[in-house]
Amino acid sequence: MPQDRRQLLVQSLRRLVRRGAVPNMRRLVAKSRPEDLAHALSKLFPREARKALVTMLETPELAAEVLASYEVVRLPELFQGLKAEQLAPAIKEMAPDDAADIFQELPEELREALLGALADEELEEIEELMQYSKDSAGGIMNPEFFAVDKEITAGETIDAIRANPEAEVVFYVFCINVDGTLVGVLSIRELLVNAPDVALQDLMQSDVISVPVTMDQEEVARIVARYDLMALPVVDEFNKLVGIITVDDIIDVMREEATEDMLLMAGVSDEDAGKTSTGKAIKTRLPWLLASVGGGIGAAFLIGMFEGELIKKAVLAAYIPIVMGLGGNIGVQASTIVVRGIAMGHLDPTKFLVALGREVRVVAVIGAVCAALVSGVAMAITGFDWRLAGAIGTSLISVMTFGALLGTSVPLVAERLGIDPAVATGPVLTTSIDLFGVLLYFMIAKAWLGI
Amino acid sequence: MPQDRRQLLVQSLRRLVRRGAVPNMRRLVAKSRPEDLAHALSKLFPREARKALVTMLETPELAAEVLASYEVVRLPELFQGLKAEQLAPAIKEMAPDDAADIFQELPEELREALLGALADEELEEIEELMQYSKDSAGGIMNPEFFAVDKEITAGETIDAIRANPEAEVVFYVFCINVDGTLVGVLSIRELLVNAPDVALQDLMQSDVISVPVTMDQEEVARIVARYDLMALPVVDEFNKLVGIITVDDIIDVMREEATEDMLLMAGVSDEDAGKTSTGKAIKTRLPWLLASVGGGIGAAFLIGMFEGELIKKAVLAAYIPIVMGLGGNIGVQASTIVVRGIAMGHLDPTKFLVALGREVRVVAVIGAVCAALVSGVAMAITGFDWRLAGAIGTSLISVMTFGALLGTSVPLVAERLGIDPAVATGPVLTTSIDLFGVLLYFMIAKAWLGI
Repeated sequence: MPQDRRQLLVQSLRRLVRRGAVPNMRRLVAKSRPEDLAHALSKLFPREARKALVTMLETPELAAEVLASYEVVRLPELFQGLKAEQLAPAIKEMAPDDAADIFQELPEELREALLGALADEELEEIEELMQYSKDSAGGIMNPEFFAVDKEITAGETIDAIRANPEAEVVFYVFCINVDGTLVGVLSIRELLVNAPDVALQDLMQSDVISVPVTMDQEEVARIVARYDLMALPVVDEFNKLVGIITVDDIIDVMREEATEDMLLMAGVSDEDAGKTSTGKAIKTRLPWLLASVGGGIGAAFLIGMFEGELIKKAVLAAYIPIVMGLGGNIGVQASTIVVRGIAMGHLDPTKFLVALGREVRVVAVIGAVCAALVSGVAMAITGFDWRLAGAIGTSLISVMTFGALLGTSVPLVAERLGIDPAVATGPVLTTSIDLFGVLLYFMIAKAWLGI
Repeated sequence: MPQDRRQLLVQSLRRLVRRGAVPNMRRLVAKSRPEDLAHALSKLFPREARKALVTMLETPELAAEVLASYEVVRLPELFQGLKAEQLAPAIKEMAPDDAADIFQELPEELREALLGALADEELEEIEELMQYSKDSAGGIMNPEFFAVDKEITAGETIDAIRANPEAEVVFYVFCINVDGTLVGVLSIRELLVNAPDVALQDLMQSDVISVPVTMDQEEVARIVARYDLMALPVVDEFNKLVGIITVDDIIDVMREEATEDMLLMAGVSDEDAGKTSTGKAIKTRLPWLLASVGGGIGAAFLIGMFEGELIKKAVLAAYIPIVMGLGGNIGVQASTIVVRGIAMGHLDPTKFLVALGREVRVVAVIGAVCAALVSGVAMAITGFDWRLAGAIGTSLISVMTFGALLGTSVPLVAERLGIDPAVATGPVLTTSIDLFGVLLYFMIAKAWLGI
C-alpha cells in the first residue's frame, strides 16, 4: 500500500544516509515517485542529508516535481546555501503557478539571483502570477494552457496536441475567438469520437463555466465541486482566457481551507501549526489564549462583585461551571453548523432570520431539557432548595438561548461584513458567552434568592 | 457569476410556479444545468412544486443527472407518490455508484418495485456495489470503466473509444492482462501523441497506484491528493481491476469528511445538521450537551466538597472560570492540531512521544505567560494576597499542562485504537479537563492558603 511504500522509502533513505551509501541512494531516488521523495525529504535529518538528497535529483524535471510537492514554508531552509544556478533549471521546468508560490517564500537575495537566471518569457509569466493574491483564482491558475481557435477542426486540434507535447492538456479543450475570448469547451473524448473534419464550433458546448481572476479560491473550489469539473477556465474582465485551474489544485485548496477553518475555530491562527517549530507554535496559539485570559479576568471581576452574595450562599459557586459550560458548548455547536454550512454552500448567509428561527426552536427544547435536569439534581443535592434550583434553571435557559443565538449570528454577520466567519467565532465567541453568562447567573440568582 | 445564476434560476422557477406557467417552466428547465436544477429543486416550495419540476425533466439522462446531484437524504420525500415506472428510466441512466447510493435511501417498497423494473445486468452492478461499505473505495467507485488489453495498439485503443461513446473515459486509459489484472496506465494524451501502431505495453507506466476495494474513503482521498491523480483504479484481492474512482467523487468525500470532523469536535454528531428538521437537530446536539450536563453536575459536586473553604475565602470562586477556561482552550487547540495533522497526513500517529514532547515545550512557555499574567492581576485586585496569587498561578500551570497533554494524547490513542480521533475529542475532552481542573484548583488553593 502507498502508505507503507512511503514509510519504506523514508527508512531506506535514512539507513543509506547513515551508511553514506551515495550510489545506492541515487538508485533509490531514480526509481521513486517525486511526491514520495518530497515526503521523504521532509523526514530526513540532519539538514545536510536533505541537501544531499536534493543534489541527487538527476534531471531538472524530477527536481521541479519534488520541489513543487515539498512544503513551501520549509523551502527557504532547504535552499539555504544553494546557488541560483543550481536551482534555476528546476524552476524553469515548473508550472508557473508552482514557481510563483516558491518565489514568494524565497529570501530576497536568492530570488533576485534566480530572476536573473530565467528567460524573459518565463519571468513575465511568474511575475504576472505573483501580482494576484495567493488565495485568488489568479494565484492558483496555470497560465500555460492549451486553447485553440474555434474555427479549426477536430483533426487539426489532435495534430496541434501532437505538435505540443509540452502543453498541459487536461481532459478539456478550450475554444477561443481570434481575440482570445473564451467561447466554448469540449472534452478530449469528443475530439476522438467525432469525424476529424468537423469544426470545433460545431462540437463545443458554448455555455462554459468560467471564473474571474479575482475570485476567492474558496468560492472557486465550491464551483468545481458543484459542477464536478476536471478543469476550470479563468478569464480576465474582457472574458479573455488567461489561465486554467485543474482539479488537483482545487483539492489542495479544499484541504487548506478546511484546516484553516478548524484551527481558527479552535484558536490556532496558522494552518502550519503542528508542523512548525515550538517558537512558531507559541506565536500561533498564545494570542487566542490571551483572549481567554482577558475573558477570565473579566469573569473574576464580575464574580468578585458578588462576593457578598457568595459568602451568604457559597453553593452558588458550584454551578458556575455548568452555566458557563453549557452556554459555551451550545454556542460552539451553533457557530460550527453555520460556519460549515456557509463553506459547504447549503446555508444561505442572507437568510439570517431563517437560521435564527431554527436555532430558537432547537434551543427551546434543548435548553428546557438541560435546565430541568440540572435544577432537579440541584434540588436533590441541596435538600429541596427550590429557590436555588429555580435560579439555576432560569439561568441555564437564559444563557443557553443567548449562546445559541450569538453562535448563530456572529458567523452570519461576519460573512456579510466580509470577515472570515471562522475567525469571528472560536475563543472570542465562547469568551463573550462566558462573561455574559456569569453576569446573568448572579443577577438571576440574586433575584430568586433575595440576597 | 455562477452563484447569481443559481439564485436567478431559483427565483424564476418560484415565480413561474406561483403563476402556474408550465410551458415557460419547461423551457427554463430545458436550458439549465442539471446541478443547478438539483439546487433549485431543493429550494422550491411546496412539495408539489418539487414534484412538478421532476416530471418536467424531459429525458431520462437529464433526470438521472439532476437526481444524482440532489441531496440523497431528501430523495425519499421527493419520490413519495412516484411510481417505479416513472423513476426506472432515470435510474437506468445513472452511474451505478450513484444509483446504489440512492437505492440505500429508498423506502423498502419503492426499492423492490424499482429493482423489478431494471435489467439483470444493471441490477447486478448495483447490488454488487451495495455490498461494499458506503465509506469504502468500493462504495464510491464506478464499476463501469474503460480498460483495454495491454497488447493492443494506441490506434486500436482510439478506435475502441470511438466505438464506445457510452464508456466513461476520464483522462487515463487503464491497461489490463487477459485475466483482468491491472498492469499499467497511460493518459489519453499519450494515445494521441504516439504513433498508432505502438502497443500500449510499450507506452504504459507499469507502476500504477491503485487501492483495494475495502480501503476507507478518507485514506483514498489522501492518496488522490498526494499524487495529484485524476482517477484512481480500484482492485480486488487478486489485483483484478473492479472499478474507477474519479477525482470529483473524491472532492465530495473530502468535503464530507472535513464537515464530519468539524461537527464532531463541536459536539454535533451528524453531518446533515443545519439542513435537517428541528427534531433531528435536537437529536444530533442534545447527547453531547448531556455529556456537558454530566460534567457540570460532577463539577458542582466537587466544588460543593469545598464549600467550607469557599465560605472562608469566597474570592476563590472568582477564578474558577479562568482555570477551567484556559485548561479547556489549550486542550482544544492541542487536540485540533493533532486531529487535523492526522487527517492531512503530516502527523504520524505512531510518533506519540514526539508530539507529546513538542506540546510540553509549547505549554511550558504558554502556561508560564498566562499564569504570570493572571497571578499578577489577582495580586493587584486582592491587595497583594500573594498566597492566593500563588495558588492561582500554580493551578493554571498544572491545569494547562494537563489539558495540553490530554488534548494531544486522546486523539493519538484513539487513532491507534481505530476510533475516529474527532469523536474522542470535542466535548468529552473538555469535560474531563474541567473536572480535573476544578479538583486540582481547590486542592492547590487549600494547600497554599492553609484553609
